[in-house]
Amino acid sequence: MQSTDSTPLSYEQAGVQYDLIDPLKVAAQRAAAATGAHLAAHGFAEVEASRGESAYVVDVGPFYLASIVECLGTKTLVADEMQRLTGRSFFDAIAQDTIAMAVNDLVTVGATPLVVQAYWAAGGSEWFADAERAQALVAGWKAACDTCGVAWGGGETPALAGIVETGRIDLAAACTGLVNPRERLSLGEELGPGDAIVLLGSSGIHANGLSLARKLSSRLPQGYLTEVAPGLGYGEALLAPTVLYSPVTEALWAAGVRVHYAANITGHGWRKLLRHPKPFTYRIHTVPPVPPVLRFIQQQAGQDDAEAYGTLNMGAGFALFLPAADAERAVAVAQRCGVPAWVAGQVEAGAKRLRIEPLGVEFGGDALQLR
Amino acid sequence: MQSTDSTPLSYEQAGVQYDLIDPLKVAAQRAAAATGAHLAAHGFAEVEASRGESAYVVDVGPFYLASIVECLGTKTLVADEMQRLTGRSFFDAIAQDTIAMAVNDLVTVGATPLVVQAYWAAGGSEWFADAERAQALVAGWKAACDTCGVAWGGGETPALAGIVETGRIDLAAACTGLVNPRERLSLGEELGPGDAIVLLGSSGIHANGLSLARKLSSRLPQGYLTEVAPGLGYGEALLAPTVLYSPVTEALWAAGVRVHYAANITGHGWRKLLRHPKPFTYRIHTVPPVPPVLRFIQQQAGQDDAEAYGTLNMGAGFALFLPAADAERAVAVAQRCGVPAWVAGQVEAGAKRLRIEPLGVEFGGDALQLR
Repeated sequence: MQSTDSTPLSYEQAGVQYDLIDPLKVAAQRAAAATGAHLAAHGFAEVEASRGESAYVVDVGPFYLASIVECLGTKTLVADEMQRLTGRSFFDAIAQDTIAMAVNDLVTVGATPLVVQAYWAAGGSEWFADAERAQALVAGWKAACDTCGVAWGGGETPALAGIVETGRIDLAAACTGLVNPRERLSLGEELGPGDAIVLLGSSGIHANGLSLARKLSSRLPQGYLTEVAPGLGYGEALLAPTVLYSPVTEALWAAGVRVHYAANITGHGWRKLLRHPKPFTYRIHTVPPVPPVLRFIQQQAGQDDAEAYGTLNMGAGFALFLPAADAERAVAVAQRCGVPAWVAGQVEAGAKRLRIEPLGVEFGGDALQLR
Repeated sequence: MQSTDSTPLSYEQAGVQYDLIDPLKVAAQRAAAATGAHLAAHGFAEVEASRGESAYVVDVGPFYLASIVECLGTKTLVADEMQRLTGRSFFDAIAQDTIAMAVNDLVTVGATPLVVQAYWAAGGSEWFADAERAQALVAGWKAACDTCGVAWGGGETPALAGIVETGRIDLAAACTGLVNPRERLSLGEELGPGDAIVLLGSSGIHANGLSLARKLSSRLPQGYLTEVAPGLGYGEALLAPTVLYSPVTEALWAAGVRVHYAANITGHGWRKLLRHPKPFTYRIHTVPPVPPVLRFIQQQAGQDDAEAYGTLNMGAGFALFLPAADAERAVAVAQRCGVPAWVAGQVEAGAKRLRIEPLGVEFGGDALQLR
């Protein structure tokens, strides 16, 4: 019925109502902030600037401790449907997505991820009876740990009938790491005018915007089997695993490139470039090529560039803010890690805003409310 | 229809099929173990003896890093039903349960918990629209952090329509801590004959055995409103929050009591006393009083003592193995923390088994398969 529907599709229509979540988030953030003082009794201290950043950082003396838990979201629903359509399990890719959600956030603060814990909450014991799928999840999880050089510490595999829907699984990852040496801390203290913005390429939608992407599939006559490029189906393209960026951040440090700040481009798309509270203008002069699946979503959802770049990664999965003199070298280091990269813009003095010049798109400082 | 059913109710009948989960667990444990070597590239090393223990431990030089993620399980279903019956939200207690699952595991290795991350995955944004419930969750979470002296670092509040059932929430906690100083590491290297077993009291069912407890409620004519003791309803008794044991383990260290090993008594009940791989006989001469709700479950489910003590905590939520000379002092320290405690038995040379002498119950070394 919806196959000829061409009305624009917004994020709220896709089922995510941020206004219902946000009051709780504010209350939780306030309560959480009040607990940081407990660390003094143990001889440690929170790094207050990490509140509102992508990972929480504690000063434990010889180095900083960083930790995080991250949910994959609803990308498994695409994998489930694609398994039904193709008979193939995509849970190896899904495993990488889940680890990427945690690792890519953790490295923004300058931490080396050390330990990942698995959280696999199934709708019932029978989820694990599909041996091929379960083994794909295990194999993909291990491969992602291998890529990131992290130890898989353990985890939980609860069967939660009555909470998680039958046949579904709720996936998350917790990650702990160290900022070592301490000078690697990249909470933006040195972020400032003159810094270059280096963007790292994405592999596709990664794991944000899936509610929209799933809603869209119901409008397509061939659904997930619709081609987004010759030989590339929509569902398969959506399931390209998220790029793991920790090999790049580790290689940058090893190469002597000092990152001032970093942003993982997830929910809110490029608005995440406005993440740091400092009031700067972020001017983008070069825009990475857009992966076919994201161009397809933009077109099918009838989004203009402002909406597309404000909600999806549009080809840039991670942003580095670093000294301009190191920008080209940073690009080379990333490319040696197999990750495409571009010197895409610079930080300038001025009102807080993001200007994507090639597209004529601008986001004001109030376009992102995370704190 | 089931109100007069008096056939015994086993854990499998209650819906948990461990044999479907275990093959995956074995594969995951094997893959995870193979990743520990990655830590060498960062100048660190895993503590191999922590594999199979309740928290994963990494040697980072000046101290050990411990981390974990733990799921609450299905206890929220009892809170949801009790809210329907009484109009009252029990999510403050539920928050404490969730943190206890993580913190009580983390402290078994000798770690001081430092940071807790919240994982609150709701079936949809509307879960958060019940402000009283949401605020209870926040308040309870903060209060538990205050009790444990941990910093609430942040967390995730995803809305997972299509994965988590509408109106439900999947709760988990990740916890990171340090074993500091290093001598606090309590992986059982010094566990041996002559050690005393000190048991710490539970407040009730804690958060294990809830599938059985819920199944049982459907057999009772008055369900969760059935009295288990004068003035104490079954549902309300089930929702007594799990005891947080980290204040006790911190106070023990401060008092100079050195713990050789510790076991959090959760799933598998007292069989968890057999957790350490060393082959000893654990002889129990004193059994704590059984909380009314657990005695009620045992009676209603028609369990003998072996089944009850082999699946539920039966009044003992945590076990400490420590030098006999310190046992009475450990009890006094726990009681000063408001936690009842008993010198309950001792470790002896001999075949691996647990003998609960006052009950005439014995579990062999093969009664617990965790590795």
